[in-house]
Amino acid sequence: MAGSPSRAAGRRLQLPLLCLFLQGATAVLFAVFVRYNHKTDAALWHRGNHSNADNEFYFRYPSFQDVHAMVFVGFGFLMVFLQRYGFSSVGFTFLLAAFALQWSTLVQGFLHSFHSGHIHVGPPSPLLSSPFCPIPSMINADFCVWAVLISSGALLGKTGPAQLLLMALLEVVLFGINEFVLLHLLGVRDAGGSMTIHTFGAYFGLVLSRVLYRPQLEKSKHRQGSVYHSDLFAMIGTIFLWIFWPSFNSALTALGTGQHRTALNTYYSLAASTLSTFALSALVGEDGRLDMVHIQNAALAGGVVVGTSSEMMLTPFGALAAGFLAGTVSTLGYKFFTPILESKFKVQDTSGVHNLHGMPGVLGALLGVLVAGLATHEAYGDGLECVFPLIAESQRSATSQAMYQLFGLFVTLMFASVGGGLGGDYPFWTPPLDSQCYEDQVHWQVPGEHEDEAQRPLRVEEADTQA
Amino acid sequence: MAGSPSRAAGRRLQLPLLCLFLQGATAVLFAVFVRYNHKTDAALWHRGNHSNADNEFYFRYPSFQDVHAMVFVGFGFLMVFLQRYGFSSVGFTFLLAAFALQWSTLVQGFLHSFHSGHIHVGPPSPLLSSPFCPIPSMINADFCVWAVLISSGALLGKTGPAQLLLMALLEVVLFGINEFVLLHLLGVRDAGGSMTIHTFGAYFGLVLSRVLYRPQLEKSKHRQGSVYHSDLFAMIGTIFLWIFWPSFNSALTALGTGQHRTALNTYYSLAASTLSTFALSALVGEDGRLDMVHIQNAALAGGVVVGTSSEMMLTPFGALAAGFLAGTVSTLGYKFFTPILESKFKVQDTSGVHNLHGMPGVLGALLGVLVAGLATHEAYGDGLECVFPLIAESQRSATSQAMYQLFGLFVTLMFASVGGGLGGDYPFWTPPLDSQCYEDQVHWQVPGEHEDEAQRPLRVEEADTQA
Amino acid sequence: MAGSPSRAAGRRLQLPLLCLFLQGATAVLFAVFVRYNHKTDAALWHRGNHSNADNEFYFRYPSFQDVHAMVFVGFGFLMVFLQRYGFSSVGFTFLLAAFALQWSTLVQGFLHSFHSGHIHVGPPSPLLSSPFCPIPSMINADFCVWAVLISSGALLGKTGPAQLLLMALLEVVLFGINEFVLLHLLGVRDAGGSMTIHTFGAYFGLVLSRVLYRPQLEKSKHRQGSVYHSDLFAMIGTIFLWIFWPSFNSALTALGTGQHRTALNTYYSLAASTLSTFALSALVGEDGRLDMVHIQNAALAGGVVVGTSSEMMLTPFGALAAGFLAGTVSTLGYKFFTPILESKFKVQDTSGVHNLHGMPGVLGALLGVLVAGLATHEAYGDGLECVFPLIAESQRSATSQAMYQLFGLFVTLMFASVGGGLGGDYPFWTPPLDSQCYEDQVHWQVPGEHEDEAQRPLRVEEADTQA
Repeated sequence: MAGSPSRAAGRRLQLPLLCLFLQGATAVLFAVFVRYNHKTDAALWHRGNHSNADNEFYFRYPSFQDVHAMVFVGFGFLMVFLQRYGFSSVGFTFLLAAFALQWSTLVQGFLHSFHSGHIHVGPPSPLLSSPFCPIPSMINADFCVWAVLISSGALLGKTGPAQLLLMALLEVVLFGINEFVLLHLLGVRDAGGSMTIHTFGAYFGLVLSRVLYRPQLEKSKHRQGSVYHSDLFAMIGTIFLWIFWPSFNSALTALGTGQHRTALNTYYSLAASTLSTFALSALVGEDGRLDMVHIQNAALAGGVVVGTSSEMMLTPFGALAAGFLAGTVSTLGYKFFTPILESKFKVQDTSGVHNLHGMPGVLGALLGVLVAGLATHEAYGDGLECVFPLIAESQRSATSQAMYQLFGLFVTLMFASVGGGLGGDYPFWTPPLDSQCYEDQVHWQVPGEHEDEAQRPLRVEEADTQA
Repeated sequence: MAGSPSRAAGRRLQLPLLCLFLQGATAVLFAVFVRYNHKTDAALWHRGNHSNADNEFYFRYPSFQDVHAMVFVGFGFLMVFLQRYGFSSVGFTFLLAAFALQWSTLVQGFLHSFHSGHIHVGPPSPLLSSPFCPIPSMINADFCVWAVLISSGALLGKTGPAQLLLMALLEVVLFGINEFVLLHLLGVRDAGGSMTIHTFGAYFGLVLSRVLYRPQLEKSKHRQGSVYHSDLFAMIGTIFLWIFWPSFNSALTALGTGQHRTALNTYYSLAASTLSTFALSALVGEDGRLDMVHIQNAALAGGVVVGTSSEMMLTPFGALAAGFLAGTVSTLGYKFFTPILESKFKVQDTSGVHNLHGMPGVLGALLGVLVAGLATHEAYGDGLECVFPLIAESQRSATSQAMYQLFGLFVTLMFASVGGGLGGDYPFWTPPLDSQCYEDQVHWQVPGEHEDEAQRPLRVEEADTQA
Repeated sequence: MAGSPSRAAGRRLQLPLLCLFLQGATAVLFAVFVRYNHKTDAALWHRGNHSNADNEFYFRYPSFQDVHAMVFVGFGFLMVFLQRYGFSSVGFTFLLAAFALQWSTLVQGFLHSFHSGHIHVGPPSPLLSSPFCPIPSMINADFCVWAVLISSGALLGKTGPAQLLLMALLEVVLFGINEFVLLHLLGVRDAGGSMTIHTFGAYFGLVLSRVLYRPQLEKSKHRQGSVYHSDLFAMIGTIFLWIFWPSFNSALTALGTGQHRTALNTYYSLAASTLSTFALSALVGEDGRLDMVHIQNAALAGGVVVGTSSEMMLTPFGALAAGFLAGTVSTLGYKFFTPILESKFKVQDTSGVHNLHGMPGVLGALLGVLVAGLATHEAYGDGLECVFPLIAESQRSATSQAMYQLFGLFVTLMFASVGGGLGGDYPFWTPPLDSQCYEDQVHWQVPGEHEDEAQRPLRVEEADTQA
């Protein structure tokens, strides 16, 4: 099926060997470097802590679980919309995330919590100096996984699992460095990751998709749409992402007031983006009918666009306006810009990450510039110390903070573009043929769709001009 | 398809304009009136609060997330049971909820937390006097959304999204007033909303369905059933509602003991209603076979029936007995009463809200009357102050509280009936034709059901005697 | 359809009567014995507790909700993989769990929190002496439900709901006794239940499946596989189990450090088992293709294998290594051992519980023996008191604790085998015929699979040589 016997044999071993190598190497690095931190190690447990309300675990763990559900349920099912790629969508999301969370624990650990020769995992990382909020390792690893999954959305159906793992190997490192530069060197604020997660992940994936442009992809065009039930599965993903996005943006913000304001702003922004998405989808739709692709994706743009600013004093109205704008831009992007992106820019963006994460991410970064520039001691009071510690400590003016925020966006775009551009050079790059894209059967033993054909394999096009 | 060109053009603009108008008006009202409260505003944050175990956010936010999942995952998928209305079921739930939560933030804000010319959002609302538990705005908005979704369940498949938004515009206001009258003027206890949510939402929807009675609905009868996979999707909704119902009923009860008792009672009641539903479904089923409609719905009646009384000293046995009764009544309702409701009372109740929310809601209100009437200082001790503050402060006897509870039920039925009865007067009311009910294709661009027909639209009956 | 009229009549009444009897008997026992405990009863509520960070409810309830989601969403949907048994998989899981949680509240209550003639429900059970962590009743009941559902996985498709309820009636009692012997008499540590839940549930079900061996099961072979969409539904179950497993293993461990370490170890172990499952599945798969059955199940083995040891000082590397091993063993089990289990040992294990719960459970118990044997005062410090109280109090050496752990495994295997072996003696045992296994239509009124056949029942084989 895969063209030639040697190619098939190559693929047969490629994924197992890569998984075993990556897991083996990760395990060795864990053995050498990773240790429990003082909130996780039994020897540092004290009787007095027993019923302990101070343990940040209880303030962060529910947020972690919500973020975790978004990664695996949300992302996994959102991508099931393709009619013949459901196993791969949910399966490869699962595989990629399981690897990337280990690898990012190492990379982020080296950058954020490496001391005395060891990475210390658990909440909170004691190395971080006080102006920065402590970063629980599991949440931060899941954030990095998000960026990887966003990138994979642009490549969905056109790359195999081994290629995606290689992409993650590189992307996790660049994500970690970019995040370190922004948050720790530049003092940029980006709690919900409009820049570090959405913009970075989207443009990394889009540039990589450009590098891997397939001029003959129309050979698989007939499998690129959805079917009725695949769209319903995808709505499971959408809904899970939507309901938990307030937890995502607030997962790492300051406890108490900060976390609550972030959640509330995100909740309002999402509500507004949902209404603008329905409005625009019906407006531009054929005969006034709604398009499921818009609802599944653009309704979520409200979460992306307040990623940077939701912890700030955005105001409830600001959150609604931002969400409304994001839903509008994203829906119009799906309708008008995605086709141009392919025809003019040669970027084949399978799940429309440019519309859901790219443009709303950049808008979110710019909104962060604006809101940071408007920060005053009056508006934030004592809370300024937590949202803009460098302004509170008079190391920066609000305008200066805004400039740093803007610079952070450019740094992110640079890292993402360079990283995505390296994609063509991966070793072992044996993607599916142009005529076999968006097809589970390349990678999976697939049962039939109905009872009477359950034991028969599905038909696959045998003829292949590339083979 | 929609009869005439002008009608199609009307529909084309109706939904977009309504969404844009409602979102625009809401945003303006937010700009003028809505402000962060003292637990959400950065300027009111204090260093001492930093790791703060006192911030109610941490005690309420997990409950909020559970309630949120019930609204969007639970309700959204529960209604996917119709074979050709899955997109609309989950999509319109999404749209309605996104609008209603904003609108109810305003309405409830004006009623509960309006002072100094502003609505203050966040936990807890400081205006509320001490006997009443503080009401976090996000949870309360979601509660109002529930009532709207319950009403929409009676109309499912027979109304378009614009009509549902207009319904929500009215219903949210009446919900807020009814809730204010019950909780604040009458001092009625109804933490899980047997009256304010379930009874109100159900009878509002049922009366509206009566007003909109379609004598020729049998033209769409062939689409009114489920198919195998749509029933499985609906079970996702059922299960999510079931598992999180303890969080729903306890979301706004007193912290600590009160919240735990409420969750425990709800958990037992649901378990019992599940067993009685299976028993009754098999007993009345053809050839002893179970009916998925019963399992999907009646098994949840245990959550509804203890909505008022689960925070009280219901006892574990009381919870089991109440759940058992509710599951029985609800299952028998689906089997025997729903057909009569249509044939005799001219109420077409698509998803059986009378069985799941109407009758169990009324039963739950009556159970609240009973349990309130039995309240004693011995049984509640110091906890009486939180469950029945007016009895604890000797402003009322238990019997008097019971009478107020009963009066609350009548007030609720009155508000619901009057509100639902106004339904025929909505402007822009262009519902689908009798022959096009329960059909996604009226509102959505729908892909095929199978791979080979994915690019072809589904067939729709072109002939329409009404056109 | 069910062979003879009397048989059909028998089945018609069997399930209703059993449900009604079991629910009635449970309710009576609740009325006589079950009372709120001091954290749940209003009379024991004190004003001072009001905003109370000490109430264990807030530390345990989110874990409970995660465990609850695993039971109903996770288990329910994981078993939907069978093409024609989706209603039964999710429905009977629902029924079984709703009964078992009530029954186990009684059984565990008698064993753990019975005093002054009453069972006291709520968190924490005050009877438990200090070395043992308090056990909130809802979480513990859900743990027992897990064991019952694991056993039912081996019987899936071959037994009716009434039979499963009878199995639960016995199994819950034996589960309670086995758990009591291990945790309270032998002082064995098993927070995540590698022994008490997974090993017990798996071997109970497997022995029962052996007793109920059907030599002619190939008559239903054509329904034993999956179809494309049933595999996607099953992945919902897998993903929910995977994401919440850290909460499962940590639900009952010591608050603070202990709970965090347990969650972190489980998270790493699951990530590693996912990578090894993908590697092995592709390696042993036909033409290098992945098998959905492996991904759905073996990827979860990492959660099972650290059930005993994840609260201990397993180290992050230890967690990765354990998960890797479990994923490997489980995948190879599905590929090579399940066929042998049927052909040689006459055990028909429908959903492969031997691979997901049996072998990984035993491995997890042995890993617990190893890690307990290595425990030192240096490694655990003050935390030793919570993880190994008997070692901390010098009542045992680490080696002695390890021996007790090993003995606990044998006790569990003995209880499971004896309990499962009693299966053939249940009264009212009228399972489906050999030709009607894995078929929803035996138990449910089933709609068609497609729009045009929705009103027609699905075809069922009328001919039946057994009838």
